[in-house]
Amino acid sequence: MTTVYGIQLSPFARKVILALEAKGVEFEINPVTPMNKPEGFENISPLKKIPALQDDLVTLADSTVICEYLEERYPQNPLYPEDLVARARARWFEEFSDTSVLAVAGPLFFERVVKKVMLKQETDEARVSQIIEEEMPKVYGYLEQELDEAGFIAGEAVSVADLALGSNLINAMYAGVDVDSTRWPKLAAYKNRLFSTELFANRLASDKAMMSA
Amino acid sequence: MTTVYGIQLSPFARKVILALEAKGVEFEINPVTPMNKPEGFENISPLKKIPALQDDLVTLADSTVICEYLEERYPQNPLYPEDLVARARARWFEEFSDTSVLAVAGPLFFERVVKKVMLKQETDEARVSQIIEEEMPKVYGYLEQELDEAGFIAGEAVSVADLALGSNLINAMYAGVDVDSTRWPKLAAYKNRLFSTELFANRLASDKAMMSA
Repeated sequence: MTTVYGIQLSPFARKVILALEAKGVEFEINPVTPMNKPEGFENISPLKKIPALQDDLVTLADSTVICEYLEERYPQNPLYPEDLVARARARWFEEFSDTSVLAVAGPLFFERVVKKVMLKQETDEARVSQIIEEEMPKVYGYLEQELDEAGFIAGEAVSVADLALGSNLINAMYAGVDVDSTRWPKLAAYKNRLFSTELFANRLASDKAMMSA
Repeated sequence: MTTVYGIQLSPFARKVILALEAKGVEFEINPVTPMNKPEGFENISPLKKIPALQDDLVTLADSTVICEYLEERYPQNPLYPEDLVARARARWFEEFSDTSVLAVAGPLFFERVVKKVMLKQETDEARVSQIIEEEMPKVYGYLEQELDEAGFIAGEAVSVADLALGSNLINAMYAGVDVDSTRWPKLAAYKNRLFSTELFANRLASDKAMMSA
């Protein structure tokens, strides 16, 4: 059995879960959270980061490394375009999402969801405003400039870049910060296209079921 | 022509330079430093990070993304093992080097080389001691446990993981912090093996020539 260590609301765990679902690989989730790591977790994830993945061949940390592994082990429904340049583009936007988009969506999700719902602390709305006004326009502006009117980040098919970007856009949405379609029309339309795919629609439904439980 | 934007003393630029040299790809260096970025550099590297790589097909940032691209474009002298599990291991140790080993070697190099030689500032030796005593043992201890008596990180051949780890070990060495062979004998022997390869020996000679100029 393939096990994902992590929680489905984490953007990096979600990226790995989406990759497994895209490829139709059966898996189970061991719900390790950043605040609740089992004894000896460093034997599974040396830096104690989530997600980690374990199957009959590997014990592996880092969502990017895991996705490359899954692509090579399960070539069906490829998440990396065939074309050399498009593959490089997919990997670049995966990295951009995992760092720069995370730097927007992560603190928004932390302030509005983790602190409020899980830690029972006050949201720092000044911090939220600062991210929305200062950080978000740079990141979303770059994406707006790079996206096309149709398709996904690195071509017609959903790639690993879309899993990474979409995972972060979901968490921004859960923090009540949706993509402003007057300011970033291509990004907003992209988000709607992505979230309408069966892959993302099912994931959003799973989140909804979990959160209402 | 292939152009690397960056300076050869940066560990991430060095990783890309080593990859190009391993594959025998001709290139030139445009010596962009973190402190000296040309006007419009964001058109080459969207986050203004170095290194970036430009050739007839792509303009690409992020050393990990660049190395994957170089491997696919120039399959000769592969830097990723053929075996699925070894490939995952190579990518994991590339990531570990780029983050955890950098978190040791980066500040050491900054304190002892960048500040002293380039910025004409005092080295903070308390910070250096803290890194050597607290951070380094965790990182080097993990590597010691993972390395074999022979070969390289992910097999008999030098892989992208060795480029990333070696690049950081070089900068720690330039900061006067070598691997203690009584404490981490396998890591020290690995370092000697790696630095004795033609690839690394030539790179070290190039640094030496540059620094004495």
